[in-house]
Amino acid sequence: MNGAESLAHTLLKSDVDVCFANPGTSELHFVSALDAAPGMRCVLTLFEGVATGSADGYGRMADKPAATLLHCGPGLANGLANLHNARRACAPVVNIVGDQATYHRPLDSNLTADTEGWARPVSAWVRTSSLASAVGCDAAAAVQAARTAPGQIATLILPADTAWGEGGVVAEPLPPPLVPQAPPHTIRQIADLLRRGEPAMLFLSRKALRARGLEAAYRIAQATGAGMMAQQANARIERGQGRVPIQCLPYTVPDATAALAGIRHLILVGAQRPVAIFAYPNQPSHLTRPEATIHVLARVDQNPIQALEALADELGASSAPPPNLGPVPTPASGALLAGAIAQTLAALMPEQSIVVDESVSFGRPFYPGARSAPPHDWLQNTGSSIGMGLPVATGAAMAASTVGEGRRVIDLQADGSALYTIQALWTQAREGLDVTTLLLANRKYAILLHELANVGARPGPVFESLTDLRNPDLDWIKIANGMGVEAARACNCEQFADLFRHSLRRKGPFLIELVI
Amino acid sequence: MNGAESLAHTLLKSDVDVCFANPGTSELHFVSALDAAPGMRCVLTLFEGVATGSADGYGRMADKPAATLLHCGPGLANGLANLHNARRACAPVVNIVGDQATYHRPLDSNLTADTEGWARPVSAWVRTSSLASAVGCDAAAAVQAARTAPGQIATLILPADTAWGEGGVVAEPLPPPLVPQAPPHTIRQIADLLRRGEPAMLFLSRKALRARGLEAAYRIAQATGAGMMAQQANARIERGQGRVPIQCLPYTVPDATAALAGIRHLILVGAQRPVAIFAYPNQPSHLTRPEATIHVLARVDQNPIQALEALADELGASSAPPPNLGPVPTPASGALLAGAIAQTLAALMPEQSIVVDESVSFGRPFYPGARSAPPHDWLQNTGSSIGMGLPVATGAAMAASTVGEGRRVIDLQADGSALYTIQALWTQAREGLDVTTLLLANRKYAILLHELANVGARPGPVFESLTDLRNPDLDWIKIANGMGVEAARACNCEQFADLFRHSLRRKGPFLIELVI
Repeated sequence: MNGAESLAHTLLKSDVDVCFANPGTSELHFVSALDAAPGMRCVLTLFEGVATGSADGYGRMADKPAATLLHCGPGLANGLANLHNARRACAPVVNIVGDQATYHRPLDSNLTADTEGWARPVSAWVRTSSLASAVGCDAAAAVQAARTAPGQIATLILPADTAWGEGGVVAEPLPPPLVPQAPPHTIRQIADLLRRGEPAMLFLSRKALRARGLEAAYRIAQATGAGMMAQQANARIERGQGRVPIQCLPYTVPDATAALAGIRHLILVGAQRPVAIFAYPNQPSHLTRPEATIHVLARVDQNPIQALEALADELGASSAPPPNLGPVPTPASGALLAGAIAQTLAALMPEQSIVVDESVSFGRPFYPGARSAPPHDWLQNTGSSIGMGLPVATGAAMAASTVGEGRRVIDLQADGSALYTIQALWTQAREGLDVTTLLLANRKYAILLHELANVGARPGPVFESLTDLRNPDLDWIKIANGMGVEAARACNCEQFADLFRHSLRRKGPFLIELVI
Repeated sequence: MNGAESLAHTLLKSDVDVCFANPGTSELHFVSALDAAPGMRCVLTLFEGVATGSADGYGRMADKPAATLLHCGPGLANGLANLHNARRACAPVVNIVGDQATYHRPLDSNLTADTEGWARPVSAWVRTSSLASAVGCDAAAAVQAARTAPGQIATLILPADTAWGEGGVVAEPLPPPLVPQAPPHTIRQIADLLRRGEPAMLFLSRKALRARGLEAAYRIAQATGAGMMAQQANARIERGQGRVPIQCLPYTVPDATAALAGIRHLILVGAQRPVAIFAYPNQPSHLTRPEATIHVLARVDQNPIQALEALADELGASSAPPPNLGPVPTPASGALLAGAIAQTLAALMPEQSIVVDESVSFGRPFYPGARSAPPHDWLQNTGSSIGMGLPVATGAAMAASTVGEGRRVIDLQADGSALYTIQALWTQAREGLDVTTLLLANRKYAILLHELANVGARPGPVFESLTDLRNPDLDWIKIANGMGVEAARACNCEQFADLFRHSLRRKGPFLIELVI
């Protein structure tokens, strides 16, 4: 057995059975090994950023890692932006990156690059195998690292000779470390704090935003009067009818500071201290008031659901039925305003839809506007690097299709961002994934125009030109068709509703251009 | 004057007047500053890999750097693959990368990443400005570094507060260091060696492959019987009618070792010692015989043309008319075989065309097949990272249009590679660039199938699936049209010739899908 074969078998044994692949010459032997190890579902992507973003979406929905298969150096580099997002999502991902043979690397051939150096900033774990006989153990350790709470990026670099060399040994799975729990004294301290009745807010992210975490948080809020809010961007929020709704911290600094203005105690539950994504002249970096105190109920690597339930129990908080969200709305009519799109989305999305939100500036009303939709998951851009929507939707749909749940994925997709990883459409078509892309065509990088207004400046002609996606207009129908995905254009809510219903009735991907 | 304005003015003063931009929030102030500094030609790209690849193509043709304007961290990461290629091309490039404000970076907001760490492996020079007042000096130093022989990547990282902060100072241009020359004793030693008459070969790359360098090499070859050959992949070769032809080292290891088999002395002239791009089991890494001796006439950073001319003079070699290449061929007819495509290309390409070659495996006969075309430049994939063709063509066309030469760019483009940076088509349309893309649609990653055969293996179903671009077929006409570029399909040489002539008669980009 060669090293590549030991890798394939070890991954399968460790329950990694989906691989988003964009291989090159240095991965030849691994691709061949997959033919000798039935059980791995291999998904071809046409660009590495699609592979890594798909692994992010898969990890968020499956709660276990997929593998990526990436080409040495520059191939990995093409996938870094979406690995950055995956890292911020705490999605478990195992990257397999081929590289130059150990003895060939010092010769610095033209496709030699600093693979390890590029991997390190996005990876909690990086290892370069040195021998074929070590590849199995290294692969098991990579999966263990990826599954370590709260979910991590592990990157295993395989020099070509470790893949083709004989002596490969399949390794047994390594259990991930137990998820640390918040210690009892922390629970008691926070309980004491909340009993004092000062303005407090539970600030949630990661698995605290699953339905069970939100239920426990709601018990606490009902019992103590504390508020609850989610981070600005989160890997996955379980919401909709029958669930506890939660507001996300607004994007802009003035809105975010206003949302946190009255808070004396901010209690982090799997979340980080809220800071602005960027600094702006004359605006604060920290979004809480200087006199607010930050407390940690559960660190990012601790179990937030256990911590919330323990806290609710400590407070003697009785279980509370979730608030009434009102009925599921009916579809809107008329112009494609953001609120009307959200209303129509909420009206028509099927139960257990998976919504991927890369709607950027135009779509800020979508999340609040869809709160009374049927129960669904909402996935956000955790790292603010654009180009995550189409790939994350692809991976989320793979996770849903693997377990046979028949869940529809709905990608709320800004146009400028869509172009970054547009190749994902082809993979959706090839795999027949049930993804409806709502392509929000405002034909500009609207966020930059907003940001310029935020700093009090007006755009000149160069600025306008560099944020303008017209001249020529992108024809999204042709682009989608060219990648094998059916598509149509909607100019008002009625057309949108018709096309959306049409997309839900059929199998496979569909793209609706919303001319906004 | 703020730091961003001092940057714009300093770049212009240092003769950097083209900027390939894909800005984000952290670059707001720089984009605004461009409105205050007329003279910079700003070209919007829809993906960072297009910006960096365009800067590569521009640098190769203009022999001076363009700037890129990239977004912090992940934005730079998206551009790394083509910076890898540019580094291997020794193209001069000045990257301007926005980043988090100095005081904001430690807060680790979700769009904070290791910008410097990612920049370093591709950059000869990296600096993060620390103050607005330092930005001008840092920018002048960046341009100096980029212009340092043989051409380098310089990356200047600008924390947002150094861009918006007041106190900016425009810096005077810094002259690049003189290009080192090969010392006279080296010239004499190599001359003595060549006079011994043992089998020797001049192995050329970089500016040795400009017409003047090739003329000097040809004088030496004629006088001594030495052979001459170019590296496997080169930034730019001046060739065609009236010029000295040169063969490139073949791609595969058996072909390359056969081409170098008889050589006792290999004399490097701006080239590197020939090694295989990848190692293969039971094949050598070094492509020369073990007993061959490697000599260096001109290091990569030395002036190869001066060295060749000095050597020719030392040898008393008389100037020789270039060999007769025969007439320009006539267009081929019939099936779109590689040789027939090359013949038609050579027959119809206008004088001073710029050919960008990312034809990968199918196109290996193109370069030799087009040797008797009218005089033209031929640009290759120097770093073997795919996705360079469309962007390099874009940048080369910008360089050609800036000096008003009216040169046609012809991109020989494999389909799998084209998908990596397909967004370049839109920039070609927006800028009205005279680029004809010959899209070679074999609907597979053919190189991987060849490579597998090289190692003696046969593809199984997973391997076939992961190298197959069908199911669904990519519709290149629709994709090009969707990006604003006219396109048509050719199924035989006659159709190809008609469409090629058509594309040459019109302004702006055109894509011809060659169904091969």
